[in-house]
Amino acid sequence: MTCRILVLNGPNLGHLGQRQPDIYGSQGMRDLPDLLETLMGRAVDEVELFFFQANGEGRIIDRLEQARNEDVYGVALNAGAYTHTSLALADCLAWIDLPCVEVHLSNILARAESIRHASLIAPHCVGVISGFGLLSYALAVQTLWLRWSTSIAEPS
Amino acid sequence: MTCRILVLNGPNLGHLGQRQPDIYGSQGMRDLPDLLETLMGRAVDEVELFFFQANGEGRIIDRLEQARNEDVYGVALNAGAYTHTSLALADCLAWIDLPCVEVHLSNILARAESIRHASLIAPHCVGVISGFGLLSYALAVQTLWLRWSTSIAEPS
Amino acid sequence: MTCRILVLNGPNLGHLGQRQPDIYGSQGMRDLPDLLETLMGRAVDEVELFFFQANGEGRIIDRLEQARNEDVYGVALNAGAYTHTSLALADCLAWIDLPCVEVHLSNILARAESIRHASLIAPHCVGVISGFGLLSYALAVQTLWLRWSTSIAEPS
Amino acid sequence: MTCRILVLNGPNLGHLGQRQPDIYGSQGMRDLPDLLETLMGRAVDEVELFFFQANGEGRIIDRLEQARNEDVYGVALNAGAYTHTSLALADCLAWIDLPCVEVHLSNILARAESIRHASLIAPHCVGVISGFGLLSYALAVQTLWLRWSTSIAEPS
Amino acid sequence: MTCRILVLNGPNLGHLGQRQPDIYGSQGMRDLPDLLETLMGRAVDEVELFFFQANGEGRIIDRLEQARNEDVYGVALNAGAYTHTSLALADCLAWIDLPCVEVHLSNILARAESIRHASLIAPHCVGVISGFGLLSYALAVQTLWLRWSTSIAEPS
Amino acid sequence: MTCRILVLNGPNLGHLGQRQPDIYGSQGMRDLPDLLETLMGRAVDEVELFFFQANGEGRIIDRLEQARNEDVYGVALNAGAYTHTSLALADCLAWIDLPCVEVHLSNILARAESIRHASLIAPHCVGVISGFGLLSYALAVQTLWLRWSTSIAEPS
Amino acid sequence: MTCRILVLNGPNLGHLGQRQPDIYGSQGMRDLPDLLETLMGRAVDEVELFFFQANGEGRIIDRLEQARNEDVYGVALNAGAYTHTSLALADCLAWIDLPCVEVHLSNILARAESIRHASLIAPHCVGVISGFGLLSYALAVQTLWLRWSTSIAEPS
Amino acid sequence: MTCRILVLNGPNLGHLGQRQPDIYGSQGMRDLPDLLETLMGRAVDEVELFFFQANGEGRIIDRLEQARNEDVYGVALNAGAYTHTSLALADCLAWIDLPCVEVHLSNILARAESIRHASLIAPHCVGVISGFGLLSYALAVQTLWLRWSTSIAEPS
Amino acid sequence: MTCRILVLNGPNLGHLGQRQPDIYGSQGMRDLPDLLETLMGRAVDEVELFFFQANGEGRIIDRLEQARNEDVYGVALNAGAYTHTSLALADCLAWIDLPCVEVHLSNILARAESIRHASLIAPHCVGVISGFGLLSYALAVQTLWLRWSTSIAEPS
Amino acid sequence: MTCRILVLNGPNLGHLGQRQPDIYGSQGMRDLPDLLETLMGRAVDEVELFFFQANGEGRIIDRLEQARNEDVYGVALNAGAYTHTSLALADCLAWIDLPCVEVHLSNILARAESIRHASLIAPHCVGVISGFGLLSYALAVQTLWLRWSTSIAEPS
Amino acid sequence: MTCRILVLNGPNLGHLGQRQPDIYGSQGMRDLPDLLETLMGRAVDEVELFFFQANGEGRIIDRLEQARNEDVYGVALNAGAYTHTSLALADCLAWIDLPCVEVHLSNILARAESIRHASLIAPHCVGVISGFGLLSYALAVQTLWLRWSTSIAEPS
Amino acid sequence: MTCRILVLNGPNLGHLGQRQPDIYGSQGMRDLPDLLETLMGRAVDEVELFFFQANGEGRIIDRLEQARNEDVYGVALNAGAYTHTSLALADCLAWIDLPCVEVHLSNILARAESIRHASLIAPHCVGVISGFGLLSYALAVQTLWLRWSTSIAEPS
Repeated sequence: MTCRILVLNGPNLGHLGQRQPDIYGSQGMRDLPDLLETLMGRAVDEVELFFFQANGEGRIIDRLEQARNEDVYGVALNAGAYTHTSLALADCLAWIDLPCVEVHLSNILARAESIRHASLIAPHCVGVISGFGLLSYALAVQTLWLRWSTSIAEPS
Repeated sequence: MTCRILVLNGPNLGHLGQRQPDIYGSQGMRDLPDLLETLMGRAVDEVELFFFQANGEGRIIDRLEQARNEDVYGVALNAGAYTHTSLALADCLAWIDLPCVEVHLSNILARAESIRHASLIAPHCVGVISGFGLLSYALAVQTLWLRWSTSIAEPS
Repeated sequence: MTCRILVLNGPNLGHLGQRQPDIYGSQGMRDLPDLLETLMGRAVDEVELFFFQANGEGRIIDRLEQARNEDVYGVALNAGAYTHTSLALADCLAWIDLPCVEVHLSNILARAESIRHASLIAPHCVGVISGFGLLSYALAVQTLWLRWSTSIAEPS
Repeated sequence: MTCRILVLNGPNLGHLGQRQPDIYGSQGMRDLPDLLETLMGRAVDEVELFFFQANGEGRIIDRLEQARNEDVYGVALNAGAYTHTSLALADCLAWIDLPCVEVHLSNILARAESIRHASLIAPHCVGVISGFGLLSYALAVQTLWLRWSTSIAEPS
Repeated sequence: MTCRILVLNGPNLGHLGQRQPDIYGSQGMRDLPDLLETLMGRAVDEVELFFFQANGEGRIIDRLEQARNEDVYGVALNAGAYTHTSLALADCLAWIDLPCVEVHLSNILARAESIRHASLIAPHCVGVISGFGLLSYALAVQTLWLRWSTSIAEPS
Repeated sequence: MTCRILVLNGPNLGHLGQRQPDIYGSQGMRDLPDLLETLMGRAVDEVELFFFQANGEGRIIDRLEQARNEDVYGVALNAGAYTHTSLALADCLAWIDLPCVEVHLSNILARAESIRHASLIAPHCVGVISGFGLLSYALAVQTLWLRWSTSIAEPS
Repeated sequence: MTCRILVLNGPNLGHLGQRQPDIYGSQGMRDLPDLLETLMGRAVDEVELFFFQANGEGRIIDRLEQARNEDVYGVALNAGAYTHTSLALADCLAWIDLPCVEVHLSNILARAESIRHASLIAPHCVGVISGFGLLSYALAVQTLWLRWSTSIAEPS
Repeated sequence: MTCRILVLNGPNLGHLGQRQPDIYGSQGMRDLPDLLETLMGRAVDEVELFFFQANGEGRIIDRLEQARNEDVYGVALNAGAYTHTSLALADCLAWIDLPCVEVHLSNILARAESIRHASLIAPHCVGVISGFGLLSYALAVQTLWLRWSTSIAEPS
Repeated sequence: MTCRILVLNGPNLGHLGQRQPDIYGSQGMRDLPDLLETLMGRAVDEVELFFFQANGEGRIIDRLEQARNEDVYGVALNAGAYTHTSLALADCLAWIDLPCVEVHLSNILARAESIRHASLIAPHCVGVISGFGLLSYALAVQTLWLRWSTSIAEPS
Repeated sequence: MTCRILVLNGPNLGHLGQRQPDIYGSQGMRDLPDLLETLMGRAVDEVELFFFQANGEGRIIDRLEQARNEDVYGVALNAGAYTHTSLALADCLAWIDLPCVEVHLSNILARAESIRHASLIAPHCVGVISGFGLLSYALAVQTLWLRWSTSIAEPS
Repeated sequence: MTCRILVLNGPNLGHLGQRQPDIYGSQGMRDLPDLLETLMGRAVDEVELFFFQANGEGRIIDRLEQARNEDVYGVALNAGAYTHTSLALADCLAWIDLPCVEVHLSNILARAESIRHASLIAPHCVGVISGFGLLSYALAVQTLWLRWSTSIAEPS
Repeated sequence: MTCRILVLNGPNLGHLGQRQPDIYGSQGMRDLPDLLETLMGRAVDEVELFFFQANGEGRIIDRLEQARNEDVYGVALNAGAYTHTSLALADCLAWIDLPCVEVHLSNILARAESIRHASLIAPHCVGVISGFGLLSYALAVQTLWLRWSTSIAEPS
């Protein structure tokens, strides 16, 4: 039995590593499994990751709706700029009802532009991890895995 | 050689576990080492934790200034309500120049009061982890440990 | 001769009935004709309904542009979250110049979030009907039908 | 058995038809029954309408309090300018607890003055119908009638 | 033939002369004819003044609606606090369509409270005269009289 | 000799006890004398209470102006929603110059709507007592009585 | 003995009559004496008018400072756009301490741009007359003359 | 059995009577028992008062946390300036869960500075009494005593 | 060798010439080459234009990302309504790092809606040209051409 | 016949080339004719340029008023800081009614200070060109010339 | 006889010289006497300086209250971040009534964060000196000394 | 060798001593040398002062531009009301690049009007001295002299 997690990236996150490395770091999604192993001290066989990226607001919503019908346990979501502007995405999270952790590469609360200080999607997420580069994703996956293993151990 | 980390708690965090458990969880600081071990898959001998809690803004600043003169590598800081009101604390973090991870038990971006959506200290922190109960602290400690082990491996 | 009406739904409205039924009701689009008949006391043969839904802002605009070239008399539009954020959609309504009634399932003026109190598309709509669940659509269709039957009776 | 509905008009609505016909239309309250009949067919026989108009905020509240003690099912309320300024009227609707539909002749969300975009009374109304001239009242009456007929058919 | 002018006073203006004389002066409405004569250098037989005062917003609107059906040429209106809060009064002036001069005893633009710097009724008035005590009314009457005498001399 | 006190209630306060008892309590004005006696440990013969309630802003101002000409010592005023919207009422209190205590059943500073956090009338009141249900009135009466008895004992 | 009055015009008021006549009227400063005579019913020998116009903020302040050393009784000031932007002009009026009446051709409180609703100079003026074209100046002169003649009759 | 009440004063309240007597009165805490006796018509043996004052935010929170472990029934709290700036104090009141009455010597809603019109602690208090000098405390104590005596008489 | 320029149009710009000609002019993209020739003379031969239009925010970002891999020198971008709402588009321009000139048909700073006065994309553009109809595009192309010819002449 | 154009510069633009060259470029007004010739080829013969610069708001208005009486076709106006603060200059452009193009050396929409993002004069200009250094002026002159040549060719 | 001056430093000012020297300079409090002597051209025997620093808001208030009972003439106060957030400190200065000069090392009005542009304590200080590093303190001491020597020379 | 300092005064500062002495003091510019001597304990031969005052914004900028070409070391600038409104003056200081100390007679941060709390010129000044009457200028001159003498002693 595995904990299936969708790692979902929004606009301008398709070229991670090339895009402004001073802000977003030089690592890409393919480095995530190794980082997870370093962090947890072992290979985590129970965790299975799925990756998806889109620039379109509508396509991200499509993907989340599809996830409801797959055996996905939770979502690590970096919605990029849509974090701050997409009420439609927030509505989507409200109804698909999957555990979602909000992820950011840079520390959005520390960015200069105040528009990046508010998150429309936060009310529908378990929590937020922001500012650790690729490590943000790894911490989010850990969080979802811990939550999943607890729910298995103690079925309601 | 150990990675010494100060776990610093601000106002109303001295009775964790008793205080509104529906919001802040039923675990206390003493449960942190076990949680870390579960998370990382092994006892983490390289990490040494120090705990401090105070209700007063000045005493928290005093403690941080003292940490500069001790062999502390970094800080996991839950400044509680001072996150949103203490410019003095922000100024302190700006000059003591220790890696600091901002920690919150509840998801501050998802709380109803807008005063909890802004963080004065964020510009001086590595990142923020918010909304996972005691697990927020554990993730912060991991982050600091990873950063420390990298800095040892690759001295400048 | 028939009054052709496009019933156009925006983001997160593709699973009506399943989505948070306490807010949006348990009826779907397929119940609309029956409701219309109840309301008007007879089958309304003169009215022909077309249904379309999309999550993407661009695809909604595409559909509205297409409607200009079909024999569509008017539009009952529930733009969902785009009501509040899509200036592009507002611009589209401004130039396609079809009679449009703004429709909402919940009472947007009574929702807690202030972002739902403003409508960017309202200046380009005949009026707004908000808060009556599926009935909102039925009232909108009636309005368009009454307007259509008057325009036939009294050609300019 | 009839569905008794109070049609309640606020300030400057006592001379409908004479007042700025380009904005508010040339029809008056006395045209409402005919319009209803056109719209509803013979279902209209179950509906009994009461009319009241006053320019004073206090007198409108008096009338609504009185309605609690009469056998009134619901209210079609055009509060005029008090929609935007009367917290007292909002408080009244909150406690008298009759189904109320907010009605406007012009489309308040499309008017130029921003003061007309917010409604203090909306949180205490079933819904709002705005911008269809006298037809707004007719649609409100239909809505209340449908709600009434359902509540009779399925007594709790 | 006479120029009939309604001098209309709003809330707290029924005891002029007694009310805070340091702000509002020690003269009352009955001193207005003498002041007019001093100002204009002669008795002005063509001008006939009507006085009305009420504390209620609705009663002021009632009085203005009534004036439409009397042979009133124009209105010198001191709406008191309603100047700043009554959208209903503004709506009334918009449709009764009588020349109206906005009058204030004290200089509202110089008062300390910012709520007194905006006027909801100004867009529907010919002009505003503010800060000259009872003289404000006299200047308003002169203005209306000059306008009236011109309109007689040069009928359209 | 008695201390005559006007207990003045504004809009929606005419049916106290019936109106939303969870917010406003189940006691009415007629329970006030008993509560006073409990509180003060004796019947307070020197205090004479007058009650008045109106939904209209103008009628409340009328009543306060009338109180100037009666032998009323002070006012316990619950202006309800007019607390937050009526500049005219504030102007009235400014000039009639009677000791007035602002009273609220619920704690207006703790209500969710920010419009209820500001009071236009406070600058013209001795103080404010808010949040104790009917007890708020009793405390206000006590305050006025203490002030009255002191002013008698030490005439200027 | 004469009442010497400075009629002071600010930017863009040097070509009155040519400038947007639909807003500012077709009369110029040279028509003011005749209008005064019509208004007051006689030639007013006691009043002597001085005219000055400048587009520069500094030159207007220079002129007002100079007026302190001449035998000028008061000022009718149309500061044009500087009304809303010149704190320096407000400071000047504060210290030269001459009776000043603020004058506007159009009704500034009724203009569409909100920047025209606030006056920085009003706190240092006796009153404001706004919206009557050239008549605004005539009413201002009358006001200053009445004030002057009273001050002569009743020397302190 | 006694009703133990903590009278807790915040910053700048340690020298009451000396501090700006025109605003805060000339009485000090030691005058409170006499005032209570005058007010209630008898010595109130059931009430036992404890006094504490501190200028520091943290020390006030310390004292409130300590009160949880003592047999204190409720708190009369004058938080001074911290009323408006201390979210930490508000958080403390939220969790210690003792009946607390917010007290102010002056009428904070009537003070000129708008920063004094909002209270961060109000949502966690039973009510607020503001503007009566030392009497504010006496009324608060009465309120707590009445609440205590009722809870004894009618144990749940 | 030619200067290749992408002329990129956003939402509602696919039917230029038909869309509200009073605001946006009656010329379309196909008229651009002729206009350029008039303006530039034979220098126009060095310029090669590519046209693209989409209503979808995501598709515009896709097209810009694709341009990075083609031999495109710069972009003349009319982002339409996305100018004001699309932070994602701004982020895209930040990283693709092609010279971009912001273009608008109407003068956005002069439009009535304040939402059109701010540009999210401006920080990532060389400059903005706004208000000249189709000519805006021509001036943008010229600017890019001049920049290109300089960079050729003086290679770094 | 020539197209006479006034190139009008506001405050701090008298030493162009010396002033902060990193922001404003190293070219001065005397380089404009050469740049124009490069850009326009021989069409430049029809254009005659006039230059004026002043630091004072009033003197700029004086110069524009004077231009009405000269045979000036249009204005290329760089109002510098007055763009953002001078309502008087905006009023001037409104009435002199010459075609005016707003010009800026740097891209004002991209500057960090928000005060530079709004333009008071834009509503009275044909368009704005911002961010191209001296080239901004050249593009503005071209625009005016194109407009002029069209108006000659097609006289109304 | 000496002029005793308290030099009082707030949070994060205990390690002056070490803390961000690029912003706050490399000098410390112990360099102040020498700087004073350089500035004033002689040793100033009449001036006696006392130094105090604390990170806690309450302790600073404690120290100021204590100063009232010592023979301190005035205070040179650098409140650091509390300048902008501590209403309690402002209240303290209001009542202790000692001449206080507000001092800042950096120019707070020129700092980027707008929170540093407002001072809560300024209304209770003689003046402010900001931006000159340690010299700010020396100028403050001079100011207090001059004021003291004048008050001695001319006793009231 | 002398330190040449320009003492530059803005609007309404030409009659210092006469202008509102309660706010601005009774001393004038001619008293500055004596005050400097008192302060510094000796005649300061190295300092040479130049005085200039103008009411016009443009003339002040003219004077500052001229100072660049004279042997002026620094500027003591009291810009009066232009401190708060003149972006043009701020732009000027930005480029002329002379050491400038911002001076105010009264404490601008303590004035009641919030418009006086912000300074547009501060970002381009060394520091600000505000609230000490003529002494503010003397302290500014001292500051510039100290800076000058240091720069001579330690040439870069």
